[in-house]
Amino acid sequence: MNKIKVVQIGIGPLGQKITQFIAQREGIEVVGAVDVSPELIDKDLGEVCGLDSMDIKIQSSTTKCIESMKPDAVILTTVSSMEKITPQIEKIVSYNIPVVSTCEELSYPWNTSQSLSERIDRAAKSKQVAVLGTGVNPGFLMDSLPTFLTSVCQDVQKIIVDRIQDAAFRRIPFQEKIGAGLTLEQFENKKKKDTLRHVGLSESIHLIASRMGWKLTKVEDILVPVIAEREIKTAAMRIPVGYAAGVQQIGKGYIDDNEKIILVFKASVGESNPRDSIEIQGTPTIKSIIEGGVNGDIATCAITINALKQIIHAQPGLRTMTDIPVVSFFC
Amino acid sequence: MNKIKVVQIGIGPLGQKITQFIAQREGIEVVGAVDVSPELIDKDLGEVCGLDSMDIKIQSSTTKCIESMKPDAVILTTVSSMEKITPQIEKIVSYNIPVVSTCEELSYPWNTSQSLSERIDRAAKSKQVAVLGTGVNPGFLMDSLPTFLTSVCQDVQKIIVDRIQDAAFRRIPFQEKIGAGLTLEQFENKKKKDTLRHVGLSESIHLIASRMGWKLTKVEDILVPVIAEREIKTAAMRIPVGYAAGVQQIGKGYIDDNEKIILVFKASVGESNPRDSIEIQGTPTIKSIIEGGVNGDIATCAITINALKQIIHAQPGLRTMTDIPVVSFFC
Repeated sequence: MNKIKVVQIGIGPLGQKITQFIAQREGIEVVGAVDVSPELIDKDLGEVCGLDSMDIKIQSSTTKCIESMKPDAVILTTVSSMEKITPQIEKIVSYNIPVVSTCEELSYPWNTSQSLSERIDRAAKSKQVAVLGTGVNPGFLMDSLPTFLTSVCQDVQKIIVDRIQDAAFRRIPFQEKIGAGLTLEQFENKKKKDTLRHVGLSESIHLIASRMGWKLTKVEDILVPVIAEREIKTAAMRIPVGYAAGVQQIGKGYIDDNEKIILVFKASVGESNPRDSIEIQGTPTIKSIIEGGVNGDIATCAITINALKQIIHAQPGLRTMTDIPVVSFFC
Repeated sequence: MNKIKVVQIGIGPLGQKITQFIAQREGIEVVGAVDVSPELIDKDLGEVCGLDSMDIKIQSSTTKCIESMKPDAVILTTVSSMEKITPQIEKIVSYNIPVVSTCEELSYPWNTSQSLSERIDRAAKSKQVAVLGTGVNPGFLMDSLPTFLTSVCQDVQKIIVDRIQDAAFRRIPFQEKIGAGLTLEQFENKKKKDTLRHVGLSESIHLIASRMGWKLTKVEDILVPVIAEREIKTAAMRIPVGYAAGVQQIGKGYIDDNEKIILVFKASVGESNPRDSIEIQGTPTIKSIIEGGVNGDIATCAITINALKQIIHAQPGLRTMTDIPVVSFFC
């Protein structure tokens, strides 16, 4: 089989890791790269990504790069919001090129951004290509994987997903991002600036509900600090008792007063039982646990690459992880 | 949305349970039923299935039933072998009707029955409908679910799936089926008659391998007794030490001397740690465990029903669980 040729748009930390991963794969190759940041433009993609030179200069113009390279697909790792990504996608699909993006809000935007979703869907259908937002979360662990697990159920009453991470082993910027080491007052200030929030719980809830046929009457997404119950020391910081050790975000989807979907995303330094667990309450009830949890950085890059194979042949339009054929690793 | 109208062909124990399940669902209804067994023909489907009368007489002729009822899909629960099911499927799809079947060999028949697979694929494509073989195993726990779990992997070296069941809580015919209570000599005789074997390990191995892009050089499927290490008593039987308590079947897919896929299916009376576990060895390594395991009877009926929604809109041809969109429960 011919290699899948991709252009990468967005060469930040996530885009760089994807370039590194693709370099290790046989079935795919990067043929072009685009970024708007002045310190990246005209640099060699391989060198920027800590690899050998790749003879690919990072360009500033999506249009020129796509026109000259004619890729099979674009990997788009630029922004998290539907508002910003919609015109970027419209430009790419206008060249009949399918798109896989890590944009969190794109994972299931039909409820949260209906008119932008319709714009993307129309543009993609008119050019007979598919567009997908994916990642480990949203995109897999808290939505499409629990959805697939319900396939063996005759009845589903409630779905509970916990993604519990120990941030002690993550990069220091990640520990800071989740508010570890802050006083509760500092945590509240950071929360107000909206820099603590993980984007995607609402999208995951809407994806699951749409598949179950549940018409939710309320969706909430509540963020609270995880408070250190004992002193915690890491290489980078000391967290006194009563300070924030991290963040807990709880998303819930209701039908009237019934909690139908509960998603708990918790990341804190010193968390004792990291795991990804999914409980389907129904007939039968199923509880699936991945002890230790799935490494988010690797997983998001991998699933973005792995989705390429399905998205190239998928039905045209704005797709989600549950309306394309099962994504998997491939050589 | 309109209800999905199905004709059921095959009203044995599995078909009956599917009828019961469909009766509890809002989105589907049975509009016709076919079976060849004289004691079922002309009986009321509901009464045969332990339900209220359904005003559906079980018919002997597939042709007449489909022609008069014009269903959206057929659920086919008749036989396990590709050789026997191929003409049945050809007949159904000739009326432009998609098929979901519990036929184990149909779950991934491309390697084990290539020419019959091509016959079904051709027939289905010529009538623009899809055909699917599914079930809990093969169809989900040991093939499509592990395949989906690899979607977050940058690399996969080996896949190990264990389905370990405690038969103490299953029906007595199931305990007898797995050879519980037999001497090892009796077990060997039963094994020779091929009545102990679970059909589907090879199909699951081939499905996984095709998705990973692995060209296997050898596939084996070995069956041995589980030997009672202590005396086991159930309501139905006493199993002395050294007798068979059940069956263990190990399927392996190799590339040269490397074991790439190992599937262990074990069902015995008194098994201490029943579970469904999946280990993906790669980057990252993932181990997912469903403690207690998934109830096979419920799951096979449920997934057959749940697949209907995807198969009606799937791309035409002989499909498998990984080349249709993610199957899930729906109301």
